[in-house]
Amino acid sequence: MLKVEHIGIAVKSLSVSIPLFEKLLNTPCYKTEAVASEGVSTAFFRQGDTKIELLEAARDDSPIAKFIAGKGEGMHHIAFEVQDIRAEMQRLRQEGFTLLQEEPKEGADNKLVCFLHPKSTNGILVELTQERV
Amino acid sequence: MLKVEHIGIAVKSLSVSIPLFEKLLNTPCYKTEAVASEGVSTAFFRQGDTKIELLEAARDDSPIAKFIAGKGEGMHHIAFEVQDIRAEMQRLRQEGFTLLQEEPKEGADNKLVCFLHPKSTNGILVELTQERV
Repeated sequence: MLKVEHIGIAVKSLSVSIPLFEKLLNTPCYKTEAVASEGVSTAFFRQGDTKIELLEAARDDSPIAKFIAGKGEGMHHIAFEVQDIRAEMQRLRQEGFTLLQEEPKEGADNKLVCFLHPKSTNGILVELTQERV
Repeated sequence: MLKVEHIGIAVKSLSVSIPLFEKLLNTPCYKTEAVASEGVSTAFFRQGDTKIELLEAARDDSPIAKFIAGKGEGMHHIAFEVQDIRAEMQRLRQEGFTLLQEEPKEGADNKLVCFLHPKSTNGILVELTQERV
């Protein structure tokens, strides 16, 4: 793992939360992006070498809609940048962690991503992320 | 806000979670510290320019014990490094955020800290942190 690439935060409404986080972080939202495959709309803020990613459900069966229905708005996942996502997935499988994908999939922000099951990681949804080349 | 200084994670047992996070993050825990004033024991891991802080309750009335009783283990707070904590507290008050302290208090890792109420920040417990000089 190279660094914390971003922290994902589930919100009900980007139109409410983008201005809220602009005030909180004292920095403008620099990008919004819809990720159709995940059923989410995202908004990004820079904080040093890390990003804050707001996630709004784009449809009722989105994982973000289910998360907010169960737990309310709040911290949703931590994404770690890795150099070689397939090698890291293999290392983590061997260490006994449960991966939610067999193969990396396309994520927001031009990344290849894979998630780890929170049951194997102290309740934290962990994302591995590698820049696509 | 300068950067994400650390991400705080509530765990039931450091003796279980330190080896788990050493495997997950592929890096050793470099420091443990008890913070008597907060009733917590902490363990730190470096991830690039950011840290992961595990928090175990040191007593039954610790905020971490209450958090785990209500929500289970998982992400607890995000700490942002600031240059001048009093100036940042003043800015955030004026923006309408609710601060949990009137004055900065002593935190782990030789810091002055102040927390923002999650109700004003989309359900996220936000910590401001400034290195003590």
